[in-house]
Amino acid sequence: MSAPDRDGKILLAHGAGGRLTQELVTNRLMPALDNPFLRPLTDAAVLPELPPGRPALTTDGFVVSPPIFAGGDLGYLAVAGTVNDLAVSGAQPLWLAWALILEEGLPLEMLAVFVDGAARAAREAGVTLVAGDTKVVPRGKGDLAFAVTTGLGVVPPGRELGDGLIRPGDAVLLSGPAGDHGATIMAHRHGLGGEALRSDVAPLGGLVEALLASGARVRAMHDPTRGGVATTCNEVAARAGVRIVLDEAAVPVGDAARAVCEVLGLDPLYVACEGRLLAWVDPADAPRALDALRAHPLGRGAAAVGTVEPYREGPRVVMRTPFGGLRVLDLLSGMDLPRIC
Amino acid sequence: MSAPDRDGKILLAHGAGGRLTQELVTNRLMPALDNPFLRPLTDAAVLPELPPGRPALTTDGFVVSPPIFAGGDLGYLAVAGTVNDLAVSGAQPLWLAWALILEEGLPLEMLAVFVDGAARAAREAGVTLVAGDTKVVPRGKGDLAFAVTTGLGVVPPGRELGDGLIRPGDAVLLSGPAGDHGATIMAHRHGLGGEALRSDVAPLGGLVEALLASGARVRAMHDPTRGGVATTCNEVAARAGVRIVLDEAAVPVGDAARAVCEVLGLDPLYVACEGRLLAWVDPADAPRALDALRAHPLGRGAAAVGTVEPYREGPRVVMRTPFGGLRVLDLLSGMDLPRIC
Repeated sequence: MSAPDRDGKILLAHGAGGRLTQELVTNRLMPALDNPFLRPLTDAAVLPELPPGRPALTTDGFVVSPPIFAGGDLGYLAVAGTVNDLAVSGAQPLWLAWALILEEGLPLEMLAVFVDGAARAAREAGVTLVAGDTKVVPRGKGDLAFAVTTGLGVVPPGRELGDGLIRPGDAVLLSGPAGDHGATIMAHRHGLGGEALRSDVAPLGGLVEALLASGARVRAMHDPTRGGVATTCNEVAARAGVRIVLDEAAVPVGDAARAVCEVLGLDPLYVACEGRLLAWVDPADAPRALDALRAHPLGRGAAAVGTVEPYREGPRVVMRTPFGGLRVLDLLSGMDLPRIC
Repeated sequence: MSAPDRDGKILLAHGAGGRLTQELVTNRLMPALDNPFLRPLTDAAVLPELPPGRPALTTDGFVVSPPIFAGGDLGYLAVAGTVNDLAVSGAQPLWLAWALILEEGLPLEMLAVFVDGAARAAREAGVTLVAGDTKVVPRGKGDLAFAVTTGLGVVPPGRELGDGLIRPGDAVLLSGPAGDHGATIMAHRHGLGGEALRSDVAPLGGLVEALLASGARVRAMHDPTRGGVATTCNEVAARAGVRIVLDEAAVPVGDAARAVCEVLGLDPLYVACEGRLLAWVDPADAPRALDALRAHPLGRGAAAVGTVEPYREGPRVVMRTPFGGLRVLDLLSGMDLPRIC
């Protein structure tokens, strides 16, 4: 029998649980993703006991449009983004579950890009994808592909991190230029951007471990995704009960991202990163924390970008401009940027 | 400021990570789902150490159409379905992560139905939803709502289950009538069915524990979802290297489901259940296993529906008809029933 997917597109029946679902999994997913825990393809993956520590669980949906962009794709992003949520929580990422919701008509070559991207990000992050699911929705009821990645990791014993530990005086570090991912996606949508602009998407587990291994007293870490550095700082400041003052001149922004943001009227501080780390550290340890970040390939552009102050009243996050003024960086209440991740 | 969602619908900005995302989570999700592990709403939920045993991880996407149906809804189904994948693997379900992909324009009252359904199923199953994510896609790029639920549980020490343990002679038990869920969904789509037809969707953790507590030697368990009893038996027979012979007269099928299947030309054996258990048990223990199932509210209709035979050649799954014939129950290669779960 000739392959029913010989026209190279996803069919509704690929998601219906019968023979075509089996063929999709066997021929299109397993070659890149195979491992002993995924291989039984049964209801749940049964894993070895976790190493000592507290388990950490996180889930993230990915609906990025376009799903293939300079520097990454839906699959690579979906693995890196979830790995990063674990890593910034202090957890060592171990196991992933990946669910795909595909639109009827998705070209199989595009699916292959996502699957290869996910496999590559998992290899880079040292995690194993052990559970998966695939559903198909009719043409016009989805948009090529959505992915949801769930990650399970372990916070080693004795590692204490959290926004509640942040105190006035702490230094705010950023591991590289702000906004490259979001600017790349927006540039694609508007036909802008040149060779120089690429998403920063990357799994950050190694960078986080390098920072923590430096011995610097790290209070908390976050990855500034949706809403960017400004939104993350607002959330952190509210949870920690502090004010965060960023130094505009110190926040690294790439030239290409800045140019795209200027054309589109965006503030790079609100534009998503997918491979940057924000860390709050004891001010005495900021130099060695920066050294540790800069010594890692993903942290070469690290900078101290702000400080924590006591909160009294008014805005939670402000930016000191090069002219000595203060600009409020509030939570955006409007549209922001949909489908950036 | 009046609420930007005052027209009662999901907006794109609800998914963009700014103030509206925060309001959606705080006002629409947390009231039903709040617990100490979810409450920090940060990158990952950090959990207490797991009880002894092997962790089990599973993920499932839910794209059911329509998303509200007799006996359940997308949220209730999304939690029950994932709990069941853990339970049939022998794992005690503990923690859930839930990702929503909402379509712009989704009525907030419908979202409330899903959220309440998920919360109710989690209470019934004794699991806690500790991580979540919400994304919004533009009108026409989704279909009201999709959900992906990931479950983490633990297989207690000494509990060994698996299709590889199934051997010729084993009895096949089914905990209740086949096909009620799928028939209900299809009836909704075609404007068929009456009061009597309801989805069987339910979390099966309690039923599984009752079966295992009976002391019956259980080899393996599965929940016959997409593709129904026939598809699940095919997958199991292939993995176990056996043949499964079902007894048509013994397989319970409800009158209402049978009527819908007859009108639509469907075989109830291929129609999804979402609250039924298939169990392979030592034949000597079948009576007490059945007693244990029937003593549980979700297993009152349990029946011994078949036996395992050695595999020599030919079809993996056959059904003995009331007239003494054998009917092949192969994997379906065509369309099956899309978007049943």
